[in-house]
Amino acid sequence: MARKDTAAVPVKGSRIMVIGGASLVGSATAEALLARGAAEVTIFDNLSFGGEGNIAHLRGDPRVKVVQGDIVKLHELLRATGGLDGIVHLAAYMTLNFDRDPWGGIDVNIRGVQNVLEACRANRVRKLIFSSSNAVYGYGPGVKGGLVEETPFHAAGAPPAAILYGASKIIGEQLCRDAHRKHGQDYIVLRYSTVYGERQHYRAANALYIVETHDAIRRGERPKVIGDGSETKHFVYVGDLARANCMALESTSTDIAVNTSGPRPVTTLELVTMVAELSGRPDLKPEMVEPDPGKVRLTSGGAFEIVHRAAKEAIGWEPEVEMREGLRRLLAWRDAAAPKPAG
Amino acid sequence: MARKDTAAVPVKGSRIMVIGGASLVGSATAEALLARGAAEVTIFDNLSFGGEGNIAHLRGDPRVKVVQGDIVKLHELLRATGGLDGIVHLAAYMTLNFDRDPWGGIDVNIRGVQNVLEACRANRVRKLIFSSSNAVYGYGPGVKGGLVEETPFHAAGAPPAAILYGASKIIGEQLCRDAHRKHGQDYIVLRYSTVYGERQHYRAANALYIVETHDAIRRGERPKVIGDGSETKHFVYVGDLARANCMALESTSTDIAVNTSGPRPVTTLELVTMVAELSGRPDLKPEMVEPDPGKVRLTSGGAFEIVHRAAKEAIGWEPEVEMREGLRRLLAWRDAAAPKPAG
Repeated sequence: MARKDTAAVPVKGSRIMVIGGASLVGSATAEALLARGAAEVTIFDNLSFGGEGNIAHLRGDPRVKVVQGDIVKLHELLRATGGLDGIVHLAAYMTLNFDRDPWGGIDVNIRGVQNVLEACRANRVRKLIFSSSNAVYGYGPGVKGGLVEETPFHAAGAPPAAILYGASKIIGEQLCRDAHRKHGQDYIVLRYSTVYGERQHYRAANALYIVETHDAIRRGERPKVIGDGSETKHFVYVGDLARANCMALESTSTDIAVNTSGPRPVTTLELVTMVAELSGRPDLKPEMVEPDPGKVRLTSGGAFEIVHRAAKEAIGWEPEVEMREGLRRLLAWRDAAAPKPAG
Repeated sequence: MARKDTAAVPVKGSRIMVIGGASLVGSATAEALLARGAAEVTIFDNLSFGGEGNIAHLRGDPRVKVVQGDIVKLHELLRATGGLDGIVHLAAYMTLNFDRDPWGGIDVNIRGVQNVLEACRANRVRKLIFSSSNAVYGYGPGVKGGLVEETPFHAAGAPPAAILYGASKIIGEQLCRDAHRKHGQDYIVLRYSTVYGERQHYRAANALYIVETHDAIRRGERPKVIGDGSETKHFVYVGDLARANCMALESTSTDIAVNTSGPRPVTTLELVTMVAELSGRPDLKPEMVEPDPGKVRLTSGGAFEIVHRAAKEAIGWEPEVEMREGLRRLLAWRDAAAPKPAG
């Protein structure tokens, strides 16, 4: 149980809710909380994106509670959050969904955060961990070099949906700060870089690229690299984020936003080469193709690294899983879930 | 009447609605539209900030229609926007109101814009002029030099309410872009710098400073300058913005965001000195005081200029009223509205 004189919420013995708990990061976080000895883990999800399949392996644990609910409906949150010690809030629209439905994105990513904070206040939930994104640094040629927590938001020239997503995360973070100032709500914002890992979904353009590359290779096709392959992406393994969520709850830190990215960035060419090797087809050399100007582009188009030094200082977290090992786990999961077609 | 093959909506003969029409900029814009020969000018306002007093002088014109309504209520907008040729959308929460009520700010500045765009789509309103702000460039020491349309959003260290306001305007702009891409909505975003002029209100921290300075001088007190007086502010006269709104409607440009600022920035010391001179008390020399660290600060704390070159290129607009002349008009209005107390 959390004590009131510290921002630390030890996971062991606590009641924690994971909002968006049936997602990629949510299911891994619920697993990590259980492994650390949480007394109860509530998975709150509207099941519109996250699937039942993602949490099937957790259903057997008597400490797991599943609540189908929507953060846009404050009363559903209020009823689900009584007696909790902490919340990990992950539910969000990402860029591709913002493109299809900006109204829904704004409801979930902004009104949803307001509702979560209001539920925390009403039910005295000690600490909130809010998943933000490196999208708060924006897009385009202005985003270069090492992205640190003070990097401004670059928007010039980016597609509306990408800017809407980034700005919605900026607003979510500030609503947390406002709640901290107005009524002492303890919180930590983790700015995720692109997540990948077991139970990978298909809603994030960058992570989707890994899956598409793997699929092409399994079909015996050469994988495609956009441009010359020198574009840098900075992924983070899902298990490292699950651990970051636990450490953020347990940390005495509060009222802070930090980057959580993988050990180091990779170029697109390195990524594709690793996937080909791990798929047992190092002979399938990447094919360079021209970028499609009509497609929503999410990365900088340049080289960038997302610096995670502040996370180490604030909550003691560092990424542990190298890209090659994380990819090996993702592809093994995918091969097991969707076996290679015959022939 | 607007033709369908151009983004230009000539004001003469058109039906235009000004949302937030009972405000400082709204009342001046309604006046300018009438002077240019608009067939009908609807003032749509919830009258929560804007006052009846601001539009009393327009009530006599048979072309003026006043609708008390709220942009948060889509049905009220839908009913008010039938048959319109253009809309100038000004209604917004500013930073001080965001500090008091972030829920309301998000409703008005984000959901409100979504509703206005939906009303434009449903009722085929040809063109929308959306008032944004130089707050989209953010705050703090990162905001320096000439702010142009590509300047990123700096947020590090700024108060939550200020960041929420700036980000809400970024989102409003992108919703316009999204509507343009998805269903061809013509629009122009004008990024206002700090507005001042006749019918000045008390909700904007920077403009309020002019009024407070004038009040102090009328009481025979020395005006206060925060810091050493070298901090730069870039105001714009309300009449110049009213003209910008008309020119944006009439322009063939669409799908663009441009800065609208005054002829040049002034330092705080120049500003206070001008107010003292215009008040007939050049003898009251400014007193330098330490900034209050607890107060919401809205300006950069440094020197900046908001470059309005792109507005000239896109809609042919340039500011005309110098700060001294604009201040003279503001103070004359204020002296008439609130005569100097006896003694």
